[in-house]
Amino acid sequence: MEQRAPFPVTPRTQVHRRPDRASYDRATAHAILDEALVASVGFVDQGVPFVIPMAFARQDERLLLHGASKSRLQTLLGGGASICVNVTLLDGVVLARSAMHHSMNYRSVVVLGQPREIEDKSEKLSALERLVEHVLMGRSLATRAPNDLELKATRVFALPLEEVSVKVRSGGPVDDADDLPLEHWAGVIPLTLQALAPIADARHAPRAATPTSAFSYRRGEVRS
Amino acid sequence: MEQRAPFPVTPRTQVHRRPDRASYDRATAHAILDEALVASVGFVDQGVPFVIPMAFARQDERLLLHGASKSRLQTLLGGGASICVNVTLLDGVVLARSAMHHSMNYRSVVVLGQPREIEDKSEKLSALERLVEHVLMGRSLATRAPNDLELKATRVFALPLEEVSVKVRSGGPVDDADDLPLEHWAGVIPLTLQALAPIADARHAPRAATPTSAFSYRRGEVRS
Repeated sequence: MEQRAPFPVTPRTQVHRRPDRASYDRATAHAILDEALVASVGFVDQGVPFVIPMAFARQDERLLLHGASKSRLQTLLGGGASICVNVTLLDGVVLARSAMHHSMNYRSVVVLGQPREIEDKSEKLSALERLVEHVLMGRSLATRAPNDLELKATRVFALPLEEVSVKVRSGGPVDDADDLPLEHWAGVIPLTLQALAPIADARHAPRAATPTSAFSYRRGEVRS
Repeated sequence: MEQRAPFPVTPRTQVHRRPDRASYDRATAHAILDEALVASVGFVDQGVPFVIPMAFARQDERLLLHGASKSRLQTLLGGGASICVNVTLLDGVVLARSAMHHSMNYRSVVVLGQPREIEDKSEKLSALERLVEHVLMGRSLATRAPNDLELKATRVFALPLEEVSVKVRSGGPVDDADDLPLEHWAGVIPLTLQALAPIADARHAPRAATPTSAFSYRRGEVRS
């Protein structure tokens, strides 16, 4: 396996709070980005910060974002706006003996930068295919591909994975030594995203059987 | 039950994309905020947008945020910074017959505004207690309360629930009529946050038994 260099630490990506939890490891970032379904995209509009949840996908060393051509974010991105993308996976709640040492186990990636629009038709189609594949592998072959009208109504942007930081907390509670004798329970309740049985379109019964991949749907591994 | 007025629609909270999915209903917003464990907090630092995941809690008509007194965000908030808080619950992936109608079921709240610092000691203690209760009801009684040193090291801010919008997608896929005869499966894979069996602190065995509430841990109801 190719050993990829970690992300460079820049003044904007250097983690100051709990640097022991920080990492710039490329494989760790990729794994978190590939497991998550939703990204929190932050941007500035007329001086005001906004955060919106968005579907996304990783394609090699870039993140793909898409949206309606006329939407505010796509218009801002078309004008060269910089954004911050945060992707966070929640792995558990950490219950400590003291209130202030309560915490959460999580894996989180922050990406900063200026997305570039993908305008080339074949590159755009490949990006849209990747966005579907990110949700369910193999799915893009089992759908109708975008037509010209849809391509025109949608803009796709690529944010390079260049300014990237990772922050991870795992493991049990960390109480002060003085609190260890207290008669309080301490530990972790692990949390995981669970898929339930697929539900076929109730308004128009599908003409195909439910794919087996929909029954075994899973994002990443169970952690604590 | 008291009927609360919906949130007023302001130029900053008016939803332009898919306004059919938007709502300004107070009870809906409260329910989403009370179920979620993590908020995505967006702010601007020297013109650059940042988004960080944070624990939070709702206390009546305000959101509580806390952090290390010396952290960047707390310093910015102390200086009067405005923020955007997004809380999103993922309820399922929506697989349509066409690639472009793939979607997600989600419930999301956006809150805009300028947090105010909570400096009064009893108000601050009550806020910190609420932050623990948000994670697990009853838990604040089973922990050591914050001491003066911890209170000094932590700043707490309250963001009023005034500029608030809600966006929700639920239900099955919505394909174009022309695509309905296609031989592709279409439907929803429901997703839910599942708690696994609690894991006691392995480094220092707790002197109390695992609370029953930790075994039946659950955020909200299962949806599709």
